[in-house]
Amino acid sequence: MTGSKEKKMGTHFQKELQELKEDLLKMAALVEEAISTAVQSLVKRDSDLARKTFEGEDEINTMEIDIEDKCLKLLALRQPMAVDLRFITSAMKITTDLERMGDQAVNIAERAISLSQEPQLKPYIDIPKMAEITQSMVKDVLDAFVNGDSKLARSVCERDDIVDGLNDQVFRELLTFMMPDPQTITRAVHLMIVCRCLERIGDHATNIAEDVIFMLDARVIKHHADARE
Amino acid sequence: MTGSKEKKMGTHFQKELQELKEDLLKMAALVEEAISTAVQSLVKRDSDLARKTFEGEDEINTMEIDIEDKCLKLLALRQPMAVDLRFITSAMKITTDLERMGDQAVNIAERAISLSQEPQLKPYIDIPKMAEITQSMVKDVLDAFVNGDSKLARSVCERDDIVDGLNDQVFRELLTFMMPDPQTITRAVHLMIVCRCLERIGDHATNIAEDVIFMLDARVIKHHADARE
Repeated sequence: MTGSKEKKMGTHFQKELQELKEDLLKMAALVEEAISTAVQSLVKRDSDLARKTFEGEDEINTMEIDIEDKCLKLLALRQPMAVDLRFITSAMKITTDLERMGDQAVNIAERAISLSQEPQLKPYIDIPKMAEITQSMVKDVLDAFVNGDSKLARSVCERDDIVDGLNDQVFRELLTFMMPDPQTITRAVHLMIVCRCLERIGDHATNIAEDVIFMLDARVIKHHADARE
Repeated sequence: MTGSKEKKMGTHFQKELQELKEDLLKMAALVEEAISTAVQSLVKRDSDLARKTFEGEDEINTMEIDIEDKCLKLLALRQPMAVDLRFITSAMKITTDLERMGDQAVNIAERAISLSQEPQLKPYIDIPKMAEITQSMVKDVLDAFVNGDSKLARSVCERDDIVDGLNDQVFRELLTFMMPDPQTITRAVHLMIVCRCLERIGDHATNIAEDVIFMLDARVIKHHADARE
């Protein structure tokens, strides 16, 4: 292979990597939107809006398959080494995480539909806050990944603690509704599950963040000693 | 490269793939054991046994890192094509799923410790049944993967419906405890979360099964129309 041919192939490969990055950012934006739509449908008690999450999920699923195909093709045809290899295999894992976040958004929308058929149990303040933080985690962890920004990835891990804290807080609050009034139990359980879905979205974002940090620093913070705290 | 050298390299590669298969089966066996230990610790109200799950998790985490390293090395050094490429990238995803199942077993063990400090709410019949089914799903989906058995993979997807059904059943039963007696709510919620952990383990096994079927049949049953039912 001549030098110029090699160079040309290199440039083309860089273009393909750039496309992959853009696809991932686009997929993440769809997931952010799905979380926002699902939680808005809960707050506004709007079942039609909730159902929009289902359409969004189809698009997310299609993107997952598409991105995975592209990654496999890059691995097979370009046979990348070291950093690029790590990037592409990480991209394959990230697309799976994003797709599962989309599933969680659908779960939230389903609960929103059930809850819209009963009187509202309480004003929603912490749940939209949780949603906002998880959306920022999804956005930032993908930015951290495509830009190789380990500081931003670390900030995503830190935000997960805030989400977990809010989840515990809402959990305890809901218990105080349930205790004196069994009529509230079904609705409270729906809301507990909504919170757990948001918490799981945060977990997925954190999983990606840990992968990004691992990739960049080749350090394992993933299974640090306090993992189960 | 001479023919015999190529052949030797091919044989060596086959040996490495075989090792990878054995590692995955070993990791799956550890996850099965973690689920079993966690649920036994719940049933026997044995906090010491519950804590064994934490040690098991460390081993599972170490295996994840080890398997991922091996996969990256195989991709970089062997530059596999088609079927082998698909196999190795799937192995990387499966090891992530297995590790997350291990996390769920730890969650169950934590709830078992909390529950062992309070009077038992009800006899545990469906929860051990759910655990048994999810364990069989973990075992069989890995067998399906390493042996390329799409029929077995399909049976794993079918079992997920049984797990979901049992989860709904326990959920409803626990609501009937909570409604008349608010004293039971905290314990009932712990048990609901145990069930959700088992359900999530089933989901991970199903995710792998869908990947196996996709890999073998190159068909997308993953996002079939009734996905959100």
